Parts: sequence; C-alpha cells; structure tokens
Amino acid sequence: MSSFGTYFRVTTAGESHGKCISCIIENCPPGLALTEEDIQPQLTRRRPGQSAITTPRDEKDRVTIGSGTEFGRTLGTPLLLTIPNEDQRPRDYKFHENSYPRPSHADWTYLEKYGIKASSGGGRSSARETIARVAAGAVAEKWLYEAYGIEIIAFVSSVGKIKLFDDIDALSSNPTFLTLVNTLTRDKVDEFLPVRCPDTETAKRMEDLIAELRDQHDSIGGTVTCIIRGCPSGLGEPAFDKLEALLAHAMMSIPATKGFEIGSGFRGSEMRGSEHNDPFVSNPPASEATTPGAAVGIPPSRLGTKTNHSGGIQGGISNGASIFFRVGFKPPATIAQDQLTSRYDASGEGILATRGRHDPNVVPRAVPIVEAMAALTIMDALMAQHARQMGMKIAAAGK
Amino acid sequence: MSSFGTYFRVTTAGESHGKCISCIIENCPPGLALTEEDIQPQLTRRRPGQSAITTPRDEKDRVTIGSGTEFGRTLGTPLLLTIPNEDQRPRDYKFHENSYPRPSHADWTYLEKYGIKASSGGGRSSARETIARVAAGAVAEKWLYEAYGIEIIAFVSSVGKIKLFDDIDALSSNPTFLTLVNTLTRDKVDEFLPVRCPDTETAKRMEDLIAELRDQHDSIGGTVTCIIRGCPSGLGEPAFDKLEALLAHAMMSIPATKGFEIGSGFRGSEMRGSEHNDPFVSNPPASEATTPGAAVGIPPSRLGTKTNHSGGIQGGISNGASIFFRVGFKPPATIAQDQLTSRYDASGEGILATRGRHDPNVVPRAVPIVEAMAALTIMDALMAQHARQMGMKIAAAGK
Amino acid sequence: MSSFGTYFRVTTAGESHGKCISCIIENCPPGLALTEEDIQPQLTRRRPGQSAITTPRDEKDRVTIGSGTEFGRTLGTPLLLTIPNEDQRPRDYKFHENSYPRPSHADWTYLEKYGIKASSGGGRSSARETIARVAAGAVAEKWLYEAYGIEIIAFVSSVGKIKLFDDIDALSSNPTFLTLVNTLTRDKVDEFLPVRCPDTETAKRMEDLIAELRDQHDSIGGTVTCIIRGCPSGLGEPAFDKLEALLAHAMMSIPATKGFEIGSGFRGSEMRGSEHNDPFVSNPPASEATTPGAAVGIPPSRLGTKTNHSGGIQGGISNGASIFFRVGFKPPATIAQDQLTSRYDASGEGILATRGRHDPNVVPRAVPIVEAMAALTIMDALMAQHARQMGMKIAAAGK
Amino acid sequence: MSSFGTYFRVTTAGESHGKCISCIIENCPPGLALTEEDIQPQLTRRRPGQSAITTPRDEKDRVTIGSGTEFGRTLGTPLLLTIPNEDQRPRDYKFHENSYPRPSHADWTYLEKYGIKASSGGGRSSARETIARVAAGAVAEKWLYEAYGIEIIAFVSSVGKIKLFDDIDALSSNPTFLTLVNTLTRDKVDEFLPVRCPDTETAKRMEDLIAELRDQHDSIGGTVTCIIRGCPSGLGEPAFDKLEALLAHAMMSIPATKGFEIGSGFRGSEMRGSEHNDPFVSNPPASEATTPGAAVGIPPSRLGTKTNHSGGIQGGISNGASIFFRVGFKPPATIAQDQLTSRYDASGEGILATRGRHDPNVVPRAVPIVEAMAALTIMDALMAQHARQMGMKIAAAGK
Repeated sequence: MSSFGTYFRVTTAGESHGKCISCIIENCPPGLALTEEDIQPQLTRRRPGQSAITTPRDEKDRVTIGSGTEFGRTLGTPLLLTIPNEDQRPRDYKFHENSYPRPSHADWTYLEKYGIKASSGGGRSSARETIARVAAGAVAEKWLYEAYGIEIIAFVSSVGKIKLFDDIDALSSNPTFLTLVNTLTRDKVDEFLPVRCPDTETAKRMEDLIAELRDQHDSIGGTVTCIIRGCPSGLGEPAFDKLEALLAHAMMSIPATKGFEIGSGFRGSEMRGSEHNDPFVSNPPASEATTPGAAVGIPPSRLGTKTNHSGGIQGGISNGASIFFRVGFKPPATIAQDQLTSRYDASGEGILATRGRHDPNVVPRAVPIVEAMAALTIMDALMAQHARQMGMKIAAAGK
Repeated sequence: MSSFGTYFRVTTAGESHGKCISCIIENCPPGLALTEEDIQPQLTRRRPGQSAITTPRDEKDRVTIGSGTEFGRTLGTPLLLTIPNEDQRPRDYKFHENSYPRPSHADWTYLEKYGIKASSGGGRSSARETIARVAAGAVAEKWLYEAYGIEIIAFVSSVGKIKLFDDIDALSSNPTFLTLVNTLTRDKVDEFLPVRCPDTETAKRMEDLIAELRDQHDSIGGTVTCIIRGCPSGLGEPAFDKLEALLAHAMMSIPATKGFEIGSGFRGSEMRGSEHNDPFVSNPPASEATTPGAAVGIPPSRLGTKTNHSGGIQGGISNGASIFFRVGFKPPATIAQDQLTSRYDASGEGILATRGRHDPNVVPRAVPIVEAMAALTIMDALMAQHARQMGMKIAAAGK
Repeated sequence: MSSFGTYFRVTTAGESHGKCISCIIENCPPGLALTEEDIQPQLTRRRPGQSAITTPRDEKDRVTIGSGTEFGRTLGTPLLLTIPNEDQRPRDYKFHENSYPRPSHADWTYLEKYGIKASSGGGRSSARETIARVAAGAVAEKWLYEAYGIEIIAFVSSVGKIKLFDDIDALSSNPTFLTLVNTLTRDKVDEFLPVRCPDTETAKRMEDLIAELRDQHDSIGGTVTCIIRGCPSGLGEPAFDKLEALLAHAMMSIPATKGFEIGSGFRGSEMRGSEHNDPFVSNPPASEATTPGAAVGIPPSRLGTKTNHSGGIQGGISNGASIFFRVGFKPPATIAQDQLTSRYDASGEGILATRGRHDPNVVPRAVPIVEAMAALTIMDALMAQHARQMGMKIAAAGK
Repeated sequence: MSSFGTYFRVTTAGESHGKCISCIIENCPPGLALTEEDIQPQLTRRRPGQSAITTPRDEKDRVTIGSGTEFGRTLGTPLLLTIPNEDQRPRDYKFHENSYPRPSHADWTYLEKYGIKASSGGGRSSARETIARVAAGAVAEKWLYEAYGIEIIAFVSSVGKIKLFDDIDALSSNPTFLTLVNTLTRDKVDEFLPVRCPDTETAKRMEDLIAELRDQHDSIGGTVTCIIRGCPSGLGEPAFDKLEALLAHAMMSIPATKGFEIGSGFRGSEMRGSEHNDPFVSNPPASEATTPGAAVGIPPSRLGTKTNHSGGIQGGISNGASIFFRVGFKPPATIAQDQLTSRYDASGEGILATRGRHDPNVVPRAVPIVEAMAALTIMDALMAQHARQMGMKIAAAGK
C-alpha cells in the first residue's frame, strides 16, 4: 500500500512524470504551528540538481499545504501536501513489447504485478515518490522536536568500500561513532556537502569516487547511518510491531535499500553475551538532565545503560537511550552503459543503451529520506503509546 | 500489536509462564486439508530441550486446533491454535522495586511501557511467544506449497565468528551459497542437528563453540539465512509495503534480531551498478519448467535473471527468482554470570546473579521461526495480489 | 474479518459445534483488575436455556482467561478468553448437495462465499459467535466504568408490534424514554426477566406473544434500545469513523439485525430544523456535577444541550450528553415449520422440515450483546482520542 | 479517520473554506479506462446551486486526476483527485470564545475534540467533504459496472412526512418499491429534479414543502433509499464486517444521517419468521439470464429467493439478490432563524442569528453521496472476496 502508519497515517501518490507528487497526512496532532516554510528545507535537501555528482534533473520541489491548517496551525484534520513535477521529460523513455526492461529496475516487476506500466521513467517506482515521504516526515519531525526535543540526524557512512567506520567493530563499539551519537547535527552534516559524510578526508575520497564512476557511466552503492536522540522510553508495540521492526520496515521501503541493522547489528551476532549486554546505570535526576528533551520539560528515563549495543531498543521497546541504525543502498540500477539483456517478450537478448538523467550514487540525497522515515516511525509509535499511557493514568485514578 | 498481516492475519497471545500460547488466524483460505499433524513438525523443530546445547526447559509443545476446521478441512473461518505451557516454573523469577532489571532483556522496557510486568520470566517478551508464529506459519507454508509449490528453507549461516560463507563477498556472489539456493531442503538442514548449518565441518566447529560458551556460562550470537524458492512474480505492495520491507518487518520482529539484509545485502552497497545489475534472460517455456511450482501447474515467469544480486525482488516486487535474505541474532541476554547493574528504582548498582534455563545460542531453534515469518509474509502478499489480479481479469473481460 | 477495533482490538474465533468460542483482546490497558468473575455475569445474562421462551440448548458458558493477566491484573499484553462448547449436538444437522439451505439463514451464502460450510448448525454464522463479543465487551465495560464512570444499559423496547414507546414520536421526544435515559440500570432491566422490557405490563404482553409464537412453531422480531451514560465529549473520528458510524457498524454486525437509528432516528427525518436543533446550555460546574463520571473525577463538559435529538453525537463526535440508539432484529429464521424451498443444487423445490433448538425471539438475549458491542466501540474511540489528546497537551507544553 | 476501505482504500482531505477537497485512492485495479469525464457527472449531480431549493453557494466542482493514470488508463498506483474550492467566503463566519456554537452543528464537538476549530464554516465537518467521496465513488462505480454490470441507484423516498412509500409495510413488502427495484435508473431519477423522488405527484409536494420551509427560514429532514442491482453472491466478511454492517458504517458516516435500515428494516422486527423467511428458488440458467451482470458475462447465482425481506444479504453475505436500504437524514442544522443558545465559554445564553448559504433540505443532493458510499463499500467487499476466491481455485488445483 501507499500508506504508512496506523495513528499518524501518511498516504502518498504520484508518478515521476505525472502532474505532481502528493500526500495526505491523517491524524496530525492539532495546534501545531505549521506552514510550507517548515517543510521546504528537507525537500530542498533532497532535491536533485544540487551538485555535479547528482542527477541534472532540475526540480524546485516547492510544497503547498492544501488543507488541514488555518492561520498557520494544524486543525487535526487531514493535511494535503502537493509538490508539482516541473521538469518532466516523458520523451526520455518508451515502452514496447519488444523493448527491454531495464536490468535491476522495476520495469519488469511492475508490469508483472499490474499488467500495465507507466511508459515514462520509473513512474511510481521512481525515487521521486520519496518526496512525499520527506514532506510528511518534516511535519512529524517538527512535532517530535517541539513536544519531546527528539532529534533525528542521518549521514553518509560509506560509499562503495570507502567507509567512515571500519568494518571490524560493531557501530556500537566504534569510538568515532559513539562521539557522533551525542554531538552530530544536521547543520554539521551539511557542512560536508555534496556527500554528507561528516569527516573531511573521507568525504573528499567519496566525492572523488562518485565523480570517477559518473565519468565511467557507472554507479556505486553506499550506506546511511541514522541517530535518533531524545526518544522517550516505552515506544514500540511487541510482539510484531517492535520498534526495530517498524524502523526496518520503514527503511527497507525506501527504494534501493538492501540491508538494515540496528545497534550492534550484524557484528553483534559475533559477540558474546557477557560482552554485548548493556548494564543499567542510574540516569541523573531530571533537574540535572542535559538530554534533548530536558529543554521542553521531558525528563530522561530513571535508568540508562553503560554501553548501547542494543541501539536504544530492548525487547522491541525503546529504553530511552539513543537509537541508531544503518541502512545499505545498492548502486543505482540506471547506468549509461550498454547492457546485454532480454526483451520484455522473451524474444531474445540484445543491447539496452540507457539515456536519461540519473544519480551515480544516491546516499547523499537519501539522508533526508532516511530521516523522514525515522520521524514517521517514531511519531506513529508515540501516538500508539499515548493511547495506552493515558489509559494507565485514568485506570489508576479510577481505582 | 500482536497481529501480523492484513489478509492472512495472525493474532497471537500468551506469556512464558501463563496457561498457554495461542493464536487466531483470520482469512485462511477455505478448503485446505489441515490437522494438527500438519502443524506439529515445525513446532517440534522449534521446541526446547532438543540437545545439550539448548535450554533444558522441557516442553512438548503439542498444538490443538480449536476452531476453523471440520473433518480436516479449513472452513475459511478463524482458526484457533493453542499450545499449553507445561513446564512453567514461576518460582525462578521475582520482581521487587529494589531488584535488578536483567541487562539487555525486556524487563525494564516492559515496565516503562506498561507500568506493570509479568513477575515470572520474560512474560510476553519470552521467546515462547514465537511458538504461535511457528504454528501459524505452518498453516501458511502448507497452503503455499500445495497451491504454488513454494518452498521455504532456513539454516544457520554463522555462530559467532564461525561462518559458512566468507564475509568478503555478497551472499549473491558466493558460489557455495548459490548452490544451496537451488538444492537445499529442510531434511538436509536437519541432518546437521543440533546446529542446522549444512556443512559437516562448520557445524562441528559451531557446536563446539556453543558448548564452550555454555560451559563458560556465556552466550553467543549468530545468523540465519533463508531461501524462498518458487515465489511467483508480482508480490509486494509498493510504495511502503515493498516485499523486502515486509520481510524485514517480519524478521526484525523476532526476538533478539539486530540485522536484516536481502540479496547482495550490505556488501551490495560496495558494488558498482555495472556489476550489481541482474541482466534479464528468457526462462524456459512452461512445458520444460523444472521450477518448484511446475509440479502444481504454476509456470515460471517469462523472464529470469542471469545473476540474482536483487535477491528475487526488484522495485519492491518479486521477480520470480529465488528470494534469499540473512538475519542477524545477538547473543542471548540471559547468562549465568554475575553482572554489575542498576536496580529498578535507581537506588544504586549491585550484582545480579541469574539463574533459570536458557539457550547459550538461539540460531538453531530460530530456523523454523524465520521460516514461519517468511511464510506468513509471502502468504499475505499473495492474497493482496490475488485481489488485484482477479480485478485485472474481470476488468479485461468487462471491456 | 473477525476483528473489531483498531486500538482495543478484539479477534474472535469459533463455530457453534466446534470445541470452543474464543477471542484475543489486543491493547487492553495495563493494570486493570480483571478475573473471570468480572466477565462471567454478562455471559450468564446472554446464555441460552434461561427460561421457557429461549432455546433449550444448555450451556454454562464458563469463561477462562488464558493469558494477559497475572495476579488478577492485566499486563497490557493480549488477553485470551475461551468458552467451551459443551452441549454440542452435531447430529442435528446435515449437508447434502440435494438437501435444502435453510431459508433466510446463512447456509447458502456461506457456501457461496467459502465453497465449503460447517455441516452442523450455523457454524460460524451461529449466534454462539456472539459469546466472544460479550466476553470482550465485559472487559471494556469494566475499564470504561472504572476510569470514566461510563454506564451502558440496553433493554428490549419492542417485540413484534408490542412496543414500549409509541411509534409516532422520535425516541428523543418520548417522555417515557427520556426518564429512562437518566435512571435505568441493568439490575432494573433484569427485574423484568425473561423479557428485559422495563415495564411490567408491556413485558407481560411480550412474554405472552413470544410463548404463543413458540407454540405455533413460529418466531418474532423485536428491537433493543441502548443508553450510554457518562460518555465524555470528543469521541469519534470523522470523516468516515464518526461515532454513530462506528456504532452502526458494531450493531449491524450482530446477527439478525435489520436497522439502526440514533437520537431522533428515522422520526428525525420528519422534523423541522427549528424543532430538531438542540440548543446549548451551561452545565453545572464540576464541583456540583452528579454525572456518572463525577464519582471517578471526570467532570462534565462545559456545555450540555436542552434537548437531545442528536442522541449525544454531533458532527460524528460525542458532545457529552447521553448517547442512545435503537437496533431492529428480524424474527429468527429457524422455525419448526415445514417450508417450501429450493435444494442447494437447484434441482427443484421441496419441503424443508427443521428440527433443532432455537429461540422464538432473540431480543432478550441480545441485550448483553448490544451492550458489549457498544462498550467495544466506545473503548476504541476513547483510545483513539487519548492518542490525540496527550498530543495536544505535549504540543502545548512544547511551545 | 479520513480513510475508508481496506483494499480499495480512499483517503480524503479538505475543509469547506480551504484551497481544495481531495482524495487519494489506493489499490484501484489497473487497466481501467478512466478520465475526468468519468468522474464529473456524479460531482455535478451533487454540486450546490442547482435549483431554487438548494444552497446558492456556486461551485463548479471540477475534478482533476493528478496521478495514477496514463493515457486514460489506471496504472494500479494511487489516484489523486482534486476539486478546488472556488466560492469560498471566509468572512461569513467567525469564532470567539464569547460567541455561540451553532446548535446541532459540529462547532462545539470539533472544539472539544481537537482543541481548535476552523474559523470559517463547517471546516472539515462541512458537507463539502462529501465531494471527495463522490469522486472516489465514481471510480468504483465505473469498475463495478464494467466488470460486473453492478448498478447502484439512489433516490429520495421522503421529505418530512411526505413519503413515497407508506410506513405500514416494510420496504420489502411494498409493491411500489418492488417494481422500482428492477427498473429504476439514474436517468429516471433525474427526471424528477430538483427533488429526485421518482413519482411526479409526490415530488411536487416535496418541492413545495422544501420551498415553504426555505421561505420560513427553516429546514426539513428526509430519507434516501438505495438499490444495488447485480451484486454477486459471496460479498461481506463476517463476523464483524458483515455486508450490512459495512453499508451501515458507510451510510452513517455521511453528515446528518440518523438511521439505516436494510431489507425489511425496522418493520421486519414486527414480522413473524414464517412471513419474513425468503424461500429459495432456482435461478434461470446463465444462458437465459437477464440479470445486470449477464451482459458482461457474470452469470446469476444458482439460487434466488422468492421474496427479499433479507434485502439481498443473509448471514452478513450477499446472496445475489438486489440489495436495498434506506438512510434517514435529519433536517439541516443551519437555519436563518434566531436561536437561543449558550456561548462557547458557558458565560450565558443569548441569541444566535445565523447567516450564510445553506440547503433547507439535503436529500436530493445526498442521492449521489449515498450511491458513492455504496459503491466504495461493494468495491472493497469484492476485492476482499477476490483474494479468497483465487485462493480457493489455486488450492483446488494444487491438490
């Protein structure tokens, strides 16, 4: 489905070469100050044409709020967000039964699924679909920050084999990463444009690699790492909707993702329990708290953990520590090289020569998309827990 | 929530030290031959007490079908499956405000979430909850096999640092794995009990390592790899319910999971597009097909792929090739060692000495759980696609 | 589906002649004092064999809580409730292709829908299915009363043409009814057993009519009216999940229902706006409140209404006034008379002579079922609103 | 929520005085021929300003398809439908704490629910919200007709006490109605504009009554009756999602509705079983069928019924006979009369003098809204059943 979330529910629509990309957000809390200016910055961070190493497709990606607010406040009613497609070029693509489905693209599977496909570009499978996620995510982010002080920061952690962190340790054991967990900001990440990897030397190497592959008409994969600071304890709905399951669902729904790991991740599967267990420690009292939520009156959990191999989630429920996870992206499928492949009608193989405008690497632009999906996930989990928590208080009062 | 799936919906209930574990399956297709004997084998594969390297808790885990069938056929109405807890030992655990939440267990987070927790054992967070998944999965598996010839086989691919496949290549580039994709069976996997790693020498080393850690009162993580053979093309519901997103959700909802990767996985993020793209090839005609579904009259897709870095899913939709993915499990949190940790009431740290019966490693018993969650995911995706496909035919007929 | 509710979700299972009727309740608020003794009374009010005018099928309908509580408190985890079928008599019914589907029963439609049907009795379509609703409803009712002082009281308002209220006025204009709105209790209703119509003379006439039809091997319909007192304002989720829509859905899902009307109902469609509009009045301050919730600290809304043609709901949202509605039940389809009807295989008509044990009238036993479905609806709406309300408070605090 | 349906899911957005009304339709079957011209006619039937007895607000209500189609065919991806608000007059309304919530309107309850309300007009509670339903319904209707020959026709059956059918008999016993069931068309209904009651003399009396009330600055209620012809057997998802429950939910979600009854309805509760039961009869063979679906190759059910007190639904599942139901609408709350009522802040009562542009009666314009909601309900139920039916066939083939 094109809906995400149960409580804060986002429904998206739009093909790459149609009129617009849009979404409706149901159940946005009422009373939130919200105008287009709150949403635009993340769209601008995501938009194409930002540098020599991204697709030259030029889109302003200006959002309009069509409903759900009045005088700059949300009404609690559905928000319609619309972003027009301006730089459509339907002529770039064609579909014939004796033409070729692009390898590792969605041409073939969409046709198999629906019996029909958009003739131009990726249609619904295009990464332009993610615009609506970023727009909706920006609304959730604003609320999460204002109400809880929650901060969500993603960054590029690898491009190809160039990695910000070595591969030997779990992320949760890496000292470089552990420093970033507490200090990194979006502004800091954007100092490292166009790559968004928060280390000058590594970012330079990544940029060079992407440029090299662009010149070779090739592409390269990468990873994005995301930190959620200030998430309160108690979020996540076991058994099936554990918080890490919801985050995995959210991240693996982003186009081109191949892997998700949280906390110690796959390296955690190599560890011993005595090494992996996170002992509990007392958190400082609310009066001394410097946690992100403290500024808006949200005290930290009573207990914290000495280490954080759990990645902020235990038993599927947030424990109040920072949440962090890594998402793996494959190299973009569209490359401007000749490819030997079969025709749609299985009448034989031939050479597919692709044109069009594409990114040689997606991870810098994936940063705001990962942040958006994280925000939507946390927002939904918070509302689920709110329903229960007030129940707890009232039940207690009613006794 | 404790429900999984939209069409083939499973709702589970039960704590580790309550009366029973159970589930209700809604929307199971009618007319399927089904008795307890179809469900029991997978429960038996999952049950504890199977060897010297698993928990000594002794449970028969006998399932009863309480509704939804008559004369051994499903009626299309809800199935109630119940498995009693026999070997409960509530005295093993206690909860006091001045006692200790077990590190990296769910004690603390459940209390934070619900304001109350089961006093005995993991309660709802215990791995006994997965019994209901395995029972429900067995029903889905039977239908998938009978109707489509779909086969789902999981196995242990690593324990600690002992790995069946090296870490340098993507799974989709590993020749040992590529052979298994087409040949491995559950019976074959079970020849390698108690570890379920389909290689004699590797399995032996894994068994030794687990035994060693058991003797050290420690535990160790591992990974499970899963193959889905014969999955038809067209499954998965983009944008948000891409098939890999649904699988990731399913797998990351299993207790103790820390990572999920599909196809080329995280190694895919190091590859170039020209290397990662899977060129299309014509599949043999239905009459010559030897694919799993051929035996039940399901022809293969018109096109296949030369390589399968995509892991059988492109654009979020199955392409007819084998689906495979890997799931990382952390080491079990409960270890019979003294641990320095904080009390519930944050009144200070002290030594928690754990007793109870636990597995030093969970992956051999996780094998049927991974299979079950895969089956539930594919079943739900199939029903979603059926709704649409008949629509396509009728619309065509109606023109 | 066999699930009801989004937040407080109930999933039911069980056929009339299977082993048991059961349900799983997800998301029950934690910390509620709950044992079987809290649930049994409503089951007993619903159970058959209570008098000479109900079915002689004898069932104790004893409920067991299988999970989700410990030491008599809910844990916030799924509750499994099970009620065994004791007095099954599978031999009463048979299915042959050349036999007859019972007129106005579900035999034919179940076969059309599922391609298979339970051979004995109504199977899933039997009113025994409603046992699970009553059990789940009793849990919701307890919470609603303890937390909010909400009271739900249903009663029989007509049997055939014998009516407690005349047909000329809307319920909301009927003085007899308006008195009951504020005073009626379940105990009072049960003083009028076996009919549950709270007027001695009318109840007697109804009982005589039902007995007469029983002796004629015939059956008769009736209506149940339900009052919800103490429902807070703000419940209901427009546009599509208006509170009256949710109540209508709930009531029309009860077997044998043919109509639902709320507040002024169908008579309201004959009225003028100047007559139908409910002017607002100030409610007494919290300190002087005698509303049901006052005892548990829930103050009344600031405003009330002079009249209540709206039936406590305006714009799809509760306004704090009492909610009331009426549900119409058709006469039971199973009558012990010969009926001329067609065979399943359309091979011709013939005489169907029905045996078995059935009610000549269902409304007295429908009373607790209507109450249960009302409780489930209000409970779900409350949790939906809780999620939003805490949002409102936190957003306000965060500014 | 603002979403309707599980399979064919419609999410709507828009306030009366915002930029636009819109909806996203998920899961529309692919390959359907669809342009704005298919949707506009029903919007035009619903739009205001059509006659002297409707609101003078002038709206063209022109729909645009923003996504989900290409070259006039649906792609299976989400459809965005947008209808601009042109004749907004925000100045007509104001909100002050010491002003008055309009009696029996949603002003007060929206404020109670959301803590904020649109200052102009009904906002989200305005009947303009129903535009999106009508637009979405038109898409469903087209598919239902092309694929199944299903026809949905609603009409005005009463205005105030002026009724097309007497009140003594059930609709299912009324000979005038039974003739209409098989013959009425939308074109025929529109011959009786502006009232849409298909009887010349009755329509004239209704028109006069509405005009009279308009001149008295008052309003009047009415009922709409709806017929669904050609609905296949097998639709509806018991236990909770019986087809009549889904229809009741759909209808009672329309603004201003107070009652719903199906088949024999409330009059059915006065009948005896021997009279109410619908005996089965053999339907003519497919080759001789003149049922609506015959033209598109959909044969009738094997069995029909002699009478149709069931209203086409038995046990919550369609039986292949015509479905019909009645919906009661209260008089519009907004009347241009002085009303004595309380202020928002409970500071006392005073005179509210309403201005603005409103309908003295809504039922003629409610006709296409009722049709739309019926179409959305049937469409969703069909897709639910498709998922199961293909399951049945494949399971059968797989044995």
